[in-house]
Amino acid sequence: MSARPGVKTRVKPVAFQGARGAFSEEAARQLLGPRVAVLPCERFEDVFRSLAEGRAEGAVVPIENTLAGSVHENYDHLQAFDLPIVAETSVRIVHNLIAPAGVKFRAVKRVFSHPVALNQCLDFFARHPRIERVPFYDTAGSVKMVLEEGLKDAAAIASSVAAEIYGGHILRRSIESDRRNFTRFFLLRRPEYARRHPVRAARNAPWKTSLVFSTRNIPGALFRALSAFALRDLNLTKIESRPLRGKPWEYLFYLEFLERADAPNVQNALNHLRELADFLRVLGSYPKGA
Amino acid sequence: MSARPGVKTRVKPVAFQGARGAFSEEAARQLLGPRVAVLPCERFEDVFRSLAEGRAEGAVVPIENTLAGSVHENYDHLQAFDLPIVAETSVRIVHNLIAPAGVKFRAVKRVFSHPVALNQCLDFFARHPRIERVPFYDTAGSVKMVLEEGLKDAAAIASSVAAEIYGGHILRRSIESDRRNFTRFFLLRRPEYARRHPVRAARNAPWKTSLVFSTRNIPGALFRALSAFALRDLNLTKIESRPLRGKPWEYLFYLEFLERADAPNVQNALNHLRELADFLRVLGSYPKGA
Repeated sequence: MSARPGVKTRVKPVAFQGARGAFSEEAARQLLGPRVAVLPCERFEDVFRSLAEGRAEGAVVPIENTLAGSVHENYDHLQAFDLPIVAETSVRIVHNLIAPAGVKFRAVKRVFSHPVALNQCLDFFARHPRIERVPFYDTAGSVKMVLEEGLKDAAAIASSVAAEIYGGHILRRSIESDRRNFTRFFLLRRPEYARRHPVRAARNAPWKTSLVFSTRNIPGALFRALSAFALRDLNLTKIESRPLRGKPWEYLFYLEFLERADAPNVQNALNHLRELADFLRVLGSYPKGA
Repeated sequence: MSARPGVKTRVKPVAFQGARGAFSEEAARQLLGPRVAVLPCERFEDVFRSLAEGRAEGAVVPIENTLAGSVHENYDHLQAFDLPIVAETSVRIVHNLIAPAGVKFRAVKRVFSHPVALNQCLDFFARHPRIERVPFYDTAGSVKMVLEEGLKDAAAIASSVAAEIYGGHILRRSIESDRRNFTRFFLLRRPEYARRHPVRAARNAPWKTSLVFSTRNIPGALFRALSAFALRDLNLTKIESRPLRGKPWEYLFYLEFLERADAPNVQNALNHLRELADFLRVLGSYPKGA
């Protein structure tokens, strides 16, 4: 997204699902810097469509969470749209208690947030039984509401980015019960953009490639498919099966390994896999995230 | 759960996470009949603990959803507690619009539910822009509230079981946008209960076995592990990797295949896998669900 010196660029935004200050916006900042222009969308499908139709120049979508698993809906969109993955990042889901400036912790009687966020802070609420939990449509939106209404007895639970965007004051940091809560995000581009702006990485930095394929579920089918990678010493970092609905006994597999898709041994592995799979699609190659 | 004739049994409940009428209760009914006694719990951990400590005689927990992926938290509890899986079932997540008796659809101005449920009905709300979406703590709880408060301009979105339990009237059935929304549930017992009440199934009915194992992430490690099953023609129905947090390069794998754990070829496969895996745990063997 960095403009070359002397070249004027109209900055098109990066699309994500959710309100301003959602964890997806935190991911967008990690990937593209704190001043990235953003386009919040209501649905994941709108995010993909905004990028495909050129209203956005990139899209940031969650793909898996350490507690809640893979976001199958976004794998479906990755197959339906031709929008390559060009980067990944991981965001630790840190929940903060956010109130209007001047509101003290002891004045807080009600806390608004998305029920999933409220449930991820049950230890905090057990320690403070005087505080009522109030469900709200989303985490960042609850900060916006509490701030706009100027509530004197209320706070919201959301990311620190939401506190910054809406001008809230963080009363308590990191009140989530489980700190092992991370969400992994992909950055997507249109194919022509990805070709014109090849991703650069340090010389010996590891790369990842993500793909989906399907096989008939006969005994040993997956074992044979994985031989394409094992025989070439390619190191898998993710595998997941997903039953194909409406097609009993057929499975889709998500696979990731540590190498660029254009490396010669990967090209051989993919040719080998094509012999064995009913369907194969490379979703992207990108530098491994921190 | 069926009592033997002439033997009086005190019926202990089955624990699940959520309020009465949650989709987990629908799963409990599918597994154990419509009159099953239930123990609603606030957290998944409470569900496991209730069963382990004898306050419940069974537990019903969601393990994966076709849109949202595997519930890693419950895989963690399955490893921490010694509570074997004895049955599985799949529930289609059908969202119904539920109001107090006498409230007509055209009178509904506000609809309460969990934000995830509200978001799964966006097509319905797009067709009825006059209706406001109001987030609530859970689906079934929103039915309880709308009924108890006797709201004349409001409805809730939840399962048909919630409508039945709280005496609500279903105004519109199945208003979810995506009908491919299924959640798979496990029924758990204490080990001694499972030994005393072996599961019976039709003679040729297929069985499933679920296990978790870990390997060091060296190239080909998973390929070698899967050879234990492929060489014995065992048919995998699920595989999923999960990075072990705090142990870079080590992975946990969830695996399922179509055979009983006590079948001789499975015993051989498990002995073979023990040679290759750092850790191996069989979570249960149970008749394949519909």
